[in-house]
Amino acid sequence: MKTFDLSLYLVLDPDLCGGAEGMLRTTEEALEGGVTIVQLRAPTWKKRALAACARDLLEILRPRGIPLIINDHADVAAAVGADGLHVGQDDLSPADARRIIGPDMILGLSAGCMAEVRGADPALVDYLGIGPVWATATKKDAGEAVGLDGLAALRAATPLPVVAIGGIGASNAADVMRTGVDGIAVVSAICGQASPRTAAENLLVQLRIADRS
Amino acid sequence: MKTFDLSLYLVLDPDLCGGAEGMLRTTEEALEGGVTIVQLRAPTWKKRALAACARDLLEILRPRGIPLIINDHADVAAAVGADGLHVGQDDLSPADARRIIGPDMILGLSAGCMAEVRGADPALVDYLGIGPVWATATKKDAGEAVGLDGLAALRAATPLPVVAIGGIGASNAADVMRTGVDGIAVVSAICGQASPRTAAENLLVQLRIADRS
Repeated sequence: MKTFDLSLYLVLDPDLCGGAEGMLRTTEEALEGGVTIVQLRAPTWKKRALAACARDLLEILRPRGIPLIINDHADVAAAVGADGLHVGQDDLSPADARRIIGPDMILGLSAGCMAEVRGADPALVDYLGIGPVWATATKKDAGEAVGLDGLAALRAATPLPVVAIGGIGASNAADVMRTGVDGIAVVSAICGQASPRTAAENLLVQLRIADRS
Repeated sequence: MKTFDLSLYLVLDPDLCGGAEGMLRTTEEALEGGVTIVQLRAPTWKKRALAACARDLLEILRPRGIPLIINDHADVAAAVGADGLHVGQDDLSPADARRIIGPDMILGLSAGCMAEVRGADPALVDYLGIGPVWATATKKDAGEAVGLDGLAALRAATPLPVVAIGGIGASNAADVMRTGVDGIAVVSAICGQASPRTAAENLLVQLRIADRS
């Protein structure tokens, strides 16, 4: 049985963090603030650098039991022994990805509309990343924003755990959680912030507020 | 024992060929002209499209016994069951790549200087792609040109089979072969030519001329 906590899902961005060193520093600080899962996403990087960075991140994350998810590159995820892989609709299909990462690795899939949500096979996919909730500057090729109502409808259409992504910060995190998702994924709400630790803590406060309301 | 013939190595370029359909057409025609091995290289493509194109290419190549090599993406190579993978010095290391593709798939490695040629481990790597022999517009991030003398020296420094790449066409193919390499890799000498078949035939004529001289 795979166990993972999607509550506060940090997606690392090398540009916002200031390169590989910055991503390691951001991760260490954000972990102290309560991040529950971390994704390495560096779409312009070559794989040699990506694998090296992933191994450095695993040294930080593994002792604390926080999973590392690799974006897009099943080969890098398998080579470094990451905990998971996240694919988009244009990346390897979940079936092809499973051939590379095996049955035990966490597999996440991005979905932005009802067809994509319903098309996700729970026998292959472990969680969905649904969004963008709002338009975001961090991912240029993201689809149309689904909004809070759209997110609630998409969330209700799948039995899979769901993490919401796109334009989420402390000001709207509680509203997002009330749609019934299992967690929020953030990029710029932590990466590039003066204190990634404080930023993560402030997000966690909002998750608890949503939990009580 | 892996057997493959590096003599006339076609590297497909989606831009020069005019997309996926163009690459399939180019491949069919070039095969009639005598191409001995084919690489799919589409660095700007997402993996879903790359895997689909690779599967289409395998349908053309497999019945004729011509190997398909995938550039960079070990996960795509393994998922589609390609015959080989080609990595550069910034891609997955040969050791990491082998973890994904297993022991039986052909593994090629790009090398552009003595350190890279000598650093290639024959226990992991099946052939070297050495170049660029001359400057080329097809690959912007290629290193400095090695020239014919440089190629001969690099070729002599490795026990591995070698395919030369970079600026090679019918006018210089015989000179390149006389450095002792096992074959020539071409992109624009076949891709985008009015007749890929005639282009391949003309290159093969030069390989035979070099063989006799």
